[in-house]
Amino acid sequence: MNGKVIILNLNIINLGINKMNNRIIVLGGDGFCGWPTSLKLSEKGYDVTIVDDLSKRRISKELGAESLTPIKDIDERLAVWKKVSGKTIEFVFMDVSKEYDFEILLNLIKRVKPKAIVHFAEQPSAGYSMISHTHKKYTVERNNKATHNLLCAIVESGLDIHVVHLGTMGVYGYGTAGMKIPEGYLPINVNSKEVEIAYPTNPGSIYHMTKCIDAMLFFYYNKNDKIRITDLHQGIVYGTQTKETLRDIKLINKFHYDGDMGTVLNRFLMQAAVGHPLTVHGTGGQTRAFIHIRDTVKCVKLAIEYPPKKGDRVKIFNQAAESHNIKDLALKVQKLTGAEIRYYKNPRNEDAENKLEFTNEGFKNLGWDPILLDQSLLIEVNKIAKQYKHRCDLSKIPCASTWTKDIETDIVGSEK
Amino acid sequence: MNGKVIILNLNIINLGINKMNNRIIVLGGDGFCGWPTSLKLSEKGYDVTIVDDLSKRRISKELGAESLTPIKDIDERLAVWKKVSGKTIEFVFMDVSKEYDFEILLNLIKRVKPKAIVHFAEQPSAGYSMISHTHKKYTVERNNKATHNLLCAIVESGLDIHVVHLGTMGVYGYGTAGMKIPEGYLPINVNSKEVEIAYPTNPGSIYHMTKCIDAMLFFYYNKNDKIRITDLHQGIVYGTQTKETLRDIKLINKFHYDGDMGTVLNRFLMQAAVGHPLTVHGTGGQTRAFIHIRDTVKCVKLAIEYPPKKGDRVKIFNQAAESHNIKDLALKVQKLTGAEIRYYKNPRNEDAENKLEFTNEGFKNLGWDPILLDQSLLIEVNKIAKQYKHRCDLSKIPCASTWTKDIETDIVGSEK
Repeated sequence: MNGKVIILNLNIINLGINKMNNRIIVLGGDGFCGWPTSLKLSEKGYDVTIVDDLSKRRISKELGAESLTPIKDIDERLAVWKKVSGKTIEFVFMDVSKEYDFEILLNLIKRVKPKAIVHFAEQPSAGYSMISHTHKKYTVERNNKATHNLLCAIVESGLDIHVVHLGTMGVYGYGTAGMKIPEGYLPINVNSKEVEIAYPTNPGSIYHMTKCIDAMLFFYYNKNDKIRITDLHQGIVYGTQTKETLRDIKLINKFHYDGDMGTVLNRFLMQAAVGHPLTVHGTGGQTRAFIHIRDTVKCVKLAIEYPPKKGDRVKIFNQAAESHNIKDLALKVQKLTGAEIRYYKNPRNEDAENKLEFTNEGFKNLGWDPILLDQSLLIEVNKIAKQYKHRCDLSKIPCASTWTKDIETDIVGSEK
Repeated sequence: MNGKVIILNLNIINLGINKMNNRIIVLGGDGFCGWPTSLKLSEKGYDVTIVDDLSKRRISKELGAESLTPIKDIDERLAVWKKVSGKTIEFVFMDVSKEYDFEILLNLIKRVKPKAIVHFAEQPSAGYSMISHTHKKYTVERNNKATHNLLCAIVESGLDIHVVHLGTMGVYGYGTAGMKIPEGYLPINVNSKEVEIAYPTNPGSIYHMTKCIDAMLFFYYNKNDKIRITDLHQGIVYGTQTKETLRDIKLINKFHYDGDMGTVLNRFLMQAAVGHPLTVHGTGGQTRAFIHIRDTVKCVKLAIEYPPKKGDRVKIFNQAAESHNIKDLALKVQKLTGAEIRYYKNPRNEDAENKLEFTNEGFKNLGWDPILLDQSLLIEVNKIAKQYKHRCDLSKIPCASTWTKDIETDIVGSEK
């Protein structure tokens, strides 16, 4: 053997090791986004470990509003997935936001040595975060400590692991000086020098604020410890099922319809299904970014496949397909279903109306072809809502939280 | 009586109530900045309540490096203050960062109904925050939860209370595009519109990062709940004694000399006093902002006396008198004392050299005439260091923490 052959062999071995590391840990893998993402990654040949403390199931019980769709226990979900796909997903019960679980998290990371950790393990609702001071503190504690513990554990492990985090388009705020929101960074001119800064944040709730704090944690650990991080600024998700969750009724994804945990378009379609007027807060002139759950799953997979290089700054994608005005969405659902639209005083501190334009070239350049809202998608969600409407508690439809104590949420008008 | 007289009487009553509210709560009032501030406010006629969990005393024991100056128990300190001034300061033992003390904090605020709450209750050392993952998590937990609990409690109380928070010049980072750092806000041009944004942060340690996170918390609670907030971006403090702490030996202020908790100029003067070479990290080309402890106290008093109006954005002052390059400071101390200068590899991730210019017009416009470093101040600190040098543990002089695990802190040179 000569030197050349030996080098060639080493390259093959290296390639082998790189190819072999298809291990992914999904924090929050039992949730609305985490579950279908875990199944998709498993289906695509990744070796998936789900970490979850099942706190979203606990919150559903607290609010008295469980998922409209019937969700099986995590062990049954995973057994069914094994049966239909032949693939095993490991499950670890742990609260990554708790100090007492830190050593367990660290040991898990050292044992699995994952290629990437997808971080969904946060309290995901703006409304829930504003219910009371207890909920505010819980949201800050849960979300930011989960992120900080994860970053500390990766540094401590000494491993080079890519973190893919689910953020929100809401970190930008919605007063955007009439410009297209870029993907995380804004070029500015200071003192006659061109510099690029993190896009100034303007969170609209405690929940959104925690995602801005996460961004600060990412900035620092990326700078000091060179952790590779992708932050996904996601729009409001609609839809329920993905190709994988459709493979068995016991794999069905969550569908939150209540005023605090439910997302707006799913709520409208569900309200129409049970004959409740559509609940529009304020004028409905608020414009928001949207994405279908099937695209959430696709984008996270793309983010894993195109990680930043060691030493790169935090990579940010706007994970949203398009913008819609809330009133227009209500009118679309009304057109489809004949539902009445009812206007409520806005419980939130936000602009009554806003425009919203953003770029999403990052994922498009990686081959993403976004699903755009059309009637067939509305019908699909409305159909699921109708199928499970017997599980709905009508009293949970109005939102329970207001942004300050002096805000009331009376009905102010309706449109039939 | 006619209407006019009645109105006049009401005005007198209102004036009376406003004048009467001279109540201040000082969170962290047992600390290096908190103690002399509390005494100054008490001396000036404010009715002061100190809240502290004495954690800095606990940390001193953990590090095996207590204050060079002998510090009396808090009850003895307060009894002596009562004796020399005739004034009473209330003390409440509580950890404002802990959920189990939240109701106690809320009840205290409701009972005292303070005009302002001065918030010093944070882990104040960059070096300490970097010792290990436990110290990183402690610093984030302690500092940001303290701030968040305070803001939640004020909202919950329904009272209009001015928060005066001790931040740091370190939130700006030190790469400042060659410009004078403004006081918190930066005018930029975006999409041909002039807007003012929060000055982009660039923290140099976990400790500094927590102050950036505090700023995010302040931004949100100011926007959503209209809490009046002043954030003081303070330079590195030097000096020990103030007019009030000099009134009795038992009122003496803390003097931390160890590599992690001590501040740089005090450390140099103390090292010279005990015959240890001055410990310069890196080239000493780092430029930092400085302020004398007597000016800290004056500035906090000014901040209380000139609060923002309800509805104003967060008011930010650069609480620093001047900039110095670390090497120049070492040379000044060498000139005064003849001490050797010893150069160590830098344990921090920071630029080897930087310039630093900032504005401090905010306080100057309110009448502040900053104390500038001169030989007499160096002599004053050096004298205290000499007086208590028998209390020094020489082994605690080198810093114990490094910013990443692969950084070493060997000696690389010296200058006699």
